[in-house]
Amino acid sequence: MFNKIEHIGIAVKNLESANTMFNQLSSLGILKTERVESEQVLVSFFQVGDSKIEFLQPTSADSPIAKYIEKYGEGIHHIAFTVDDVAEQLERLSKAGFELIHTIPKAGADNKIIAFVHPKSTNKVLVELCQDSTV
Amino acid sequence: MFNKIEHIGIAVKNLESANTMFNQLSSLGILKTERVESEQVLVSFFQVGDSKIEFLQPTSADSPIAKYIEKYGEGIHHIAFTVDDVAEQLERLSKAGFELIHTIPKAGADNKIIAFVHPKSTNKVLVELCQDSTV
Repeated sequence: MFNKIEHIGIAVKNLESANTMFNQLSSLGILKTERVESEQVLVSFFQVGDSKIEFLQPTSADSPIAKYIEKYGEGIHHIAFTVDDVAEQLERLSKAGFELIHTIPKAGADNKIIAFVHPKSTNKVLVELCQDSTV
Repeated sequence: MFNKIEHIGIAVKNLESANTMFNQLSSLGILKTERVESEQVLVSFFQVGDSKIEFLQPTSADSPIAKYIEKYGEGIHHIAFTVDDVAEQLERLSKAGFELIHTIPKAGADNKIIAFVHPKSTNKVLVELCQDSTV
């Protein structure tokens, strides 16, 4: 079961200007920034209530986020939902016929264990499943 | 200030199949459905933690959602944030240089007072401000 919206991921060309924009828009301060080598992105997080807004800036042309921006431009990239057990959810979703990008959970940003469901199965919405790796 | 993510709006061609998909994906039941005549949409809501997922299906070819789907296909359409006072936020954002779609709050779905900020100003993210009209 999905417990909450963990974050919404937004692809941007320039993290610094996105941070300035969102700070002005929301009147919220930035929570933290992080470099995720595996995805070749710099990310920033803003806490909004019980969820986060995550901005992702590619650090190389090979980054999945660079390819996304090249194809679609900047904008909302994915929705991440918190679940208790990513592996269990992947098994359930696979049986239900959902197409999975990751069939095995992997390490993500923000100390999370994650996996993505393919947007083909979800009305073109890229869905991330998240579980705290510290639990 | 933004208090929380009120909902994420997702444009779909067929509300019934989107509801079935999201119920299977999330293991959550549908909260409610509603027809919004002013926007020519049928909408459904799922409660996920402190936020909602809103699916929007156009009821006519003139609906803004029909035009969005024609141009971009199905997918995430907007993010709505809860604020205490939409009018006050619009004034603040206008002064800060944000381009507004609505300069005056209007009635939206789910008993909310709403207004949209133009995606030009927000890294191509369509942002909705929401305030409970019952408060």
